[in-house]
Amino acid sequence: MNELVEAVSKATNIRVTRKDIERVLSALLSEGDFWKAMPYMSVPFNVVAETCKFLSDKDFIWFKGSKVMWREKGNQWLNREKIQPLEPSVCSVCNGKTIDLKKYKNLLAHFKLLALKRPGAIIEYDQGYVTDETTVARVALLAQKGDIQNKEILVLGDDDLLSIAAALTGFPRKVVVVEIDSRLVNFINDVARSEDLPVEAIELDLRKPLPQNLLTSFDTFWTDPPETPEALELFVGRGIASLRGPGCAGYFGVTFVESSKHKWREFQKIIISKLNAVITDIIWNFNEYINWDYLLDSIRNDIEPLTVEPSLNWYRSAQYRIETLEDTPVFNEEATGKEIYIDKEALVYTGKHSKGSD
Amino acid sequence: MNELVEAVSKATNIRVTRKDIERVLSALLSEGDFWKAMPYMSVPFNVVAETCKFLSDKDFIWFKGSKVMWREKGNQWLNREKIQPLEPSVCSVCNGKTIDLKKYKNLLAHFKLLALKRPGAIIEYDQGYVTDETTVARVALLAQKGDIQNKEILVLGDDDLLSIAAALTGFPRKVVVVEIDSRLVNFINDVARSEDLPVEAIELDLRKPLPQNLLTSFDTFWTDPPETPEALELFVGRGIASLRGPGCAGYFGVTFVESSKHKWREFQKIIISKLNAVITDIIWNFNEYINWDYLLDSIRNDIEPLTVEPSLNWYRSAQYRIETLEDTPVFNEEATGKEIYIDKEALVYTGKHSKGSD
Repeated sequence: MNELVEAVSKATNIRVTRKDIERVLSALLSEGDFWKAMPYMSVPFNVVAETCKFLSDKDFIWFKGSKVMWREKGNQWLNREKIQPLEPSVCSVCNGKTIDLKKYKNLLAHFKLLALKRPGAIIEYDQGYVTDETTVARVALLAQKGDIQNKEILVLGDDDLLSIAAALTGFPRKVVVVEIDSRLVNFINDVARSEDLPVEAIELDLRKPLPQNLLTSFDTFWTDPPETPEALELFVGRGIASLRGPGCAGYFGVTFVESSKHKWREFQKIIISKLNAVITDIIWNFNEYINWDYLLDSIRNDIEPLTVEPSLNWYRSAQYRIETLEDTPVFNEEATGKEIYIDKEALVYTGKHSKGSD
Repeated sequence: MNELVEAVSKATNIRVTRKDIERVLSALLSEGDFWKAMPYMSVPFNVVAETCKFLSDKDFIWFKGSKVMWREKGNQWLNREKIQPLEPSVCSVCNGKTIDLKKYKNLLAHFKLLALKRPGAIIEYDQGYVTDETTVARVALLAQKGDIQNKEILVLGDDDLLSIAAALTGFPRKVVVVEIDSRLVNFINDVARSEDLPVEAIELDLRKPLPQNLLTSFDTFWTDPPETPEALELFVGRGIASLRGPGCAGYFGVTFVESSKHKWREFQKIIISKLNAVITDIIWNFNEYINWDYLLDSIRNDIEPLTVEPSLNWYRSAQYRIETLEDTPVFNEEATGKEIYIDKEALVYTGKHSKGSD
């Protein structure tokens, strides 16, 4: 086991503990398939891939497509190391999201129709959007928390079309989208016009400061930052700068796919000690992404599962909700020129961006 | 609205924002009942009580038992202030816990039988235990995360009898309970003996350091600290001191009933920047407490709802899960003599302890 932990740490340049690897093995055991196990992983993608590579090189496992099969030798080793499978008990009704979509059945159907013609995800802005059910669950969560009723909402990057789903409820007074991709800006504005929704999309690179009229004007923001500390601080900082004051809410997603627990802690330090907000919720696997076309072209391909299209939506993120307090500061500085998209824990091997951002 | 915010802040000595009060009003509107609205509150109990008192003094509302009825004058004010009800969408199957108990049906039935003879909750140790379903959901969560299989678990304070439910799965190698109440110590040891479970309960006041043989020996800890920063640091610190090293997991609950968001942030700072752990999950309302006998004797009674027994289990806490990292330090100092149980956000007006601790 020590050899495995060291090999993976060295190959990925990510600090990995024995416990991390034990949980990877437990998830592989319970799910039996590389992609199916991914939602249960709490380490970056490359740690999982390196672990599988090591086990395969040792002849502990072999692959049948994306399935992970254990050889006798591997099973003996698992026994010696006392590794047992995870025992998932994810609620089959809400998929662990905590939220029931019953109230939003009609809205979901309507939203699905509108979303059919959305622009496809492109690698240039590292897009990749969540399922329609996830988008509507976000709306339900906003309404449960009182963060949408009669509120003004800013969505920073919206390839998920949250703005449209939110406005369809009739709850928000106004939804503003800032988005770098002009295809999305046009699509959202077109739908808003044809459906008569209080939604306005504006083309903007978030590395640039927010325009004056978007500062301290909103009740709630939603964003999906690229997973580097710089990007998180920038996106969430912009979100906070847009809020009216204390007690307002912000929402964003963070994955384990691209962020180790060290990075998670760094994110949490930024939120709590730099942006001076408080975390009220971290809902595991709340956000479920639809598999995007360019996945297999953008990742490593040195083990068989990574050459096989995933049979489920494997890429998930935890939903963070934060609230501002009296001492939450306003940051709105320029951040162009900085590399904010990629670090050693990123999923992509090529390309410039990290999933879920825009 | 400003008058209300100021009056409540002054009367409770808790910093309250306009948004906080708006959410209190929204929850009262959607639930229509003081106790039923409590699970949706994200401010301390006394803030809710003061808000109701203010509204009643203004003749905006009147009470019918624990029901909150709005007068014409109150409704007009709500309209002017643009307050709308919350729209709860809590999953009806898992109650928002994220966890399905299907796999644990037999275990739950067995546990219910064993728990029937548990010692009652007493104010001396500020007890109050969670529903049997909550205890079993905790076990399911442990198993889903891989924190129980073949693991050694320390439970710091166990009026919830988690140790017994956990051991009934057959998963853990060993469960040790440290508990101040000798009635519980004896009960747990008796059940362990008669059911042949790998559980051992030890009488210990957690303000005293953990004995040497409990240090750096466990994979997972579970605790339910009193809700002051001192107590949280002490209980979670003790838990961490019991863990083998990085990558181990700790679980504890935090309420809004007794902790404002300012205190929540203080707790988060302690976890992240002092105990150097990372928060992996915050599951809203995961822990559901059974109403305890001494509730109405221990709280204020200046408005009618507070003289009426709650018709549901209103006291909830969010479930935190943390993991240790390489730099998580070990604290095990003596803390006797310090007041760790009560502060201005506590539920009780008299008595010495805060709910859920032991």
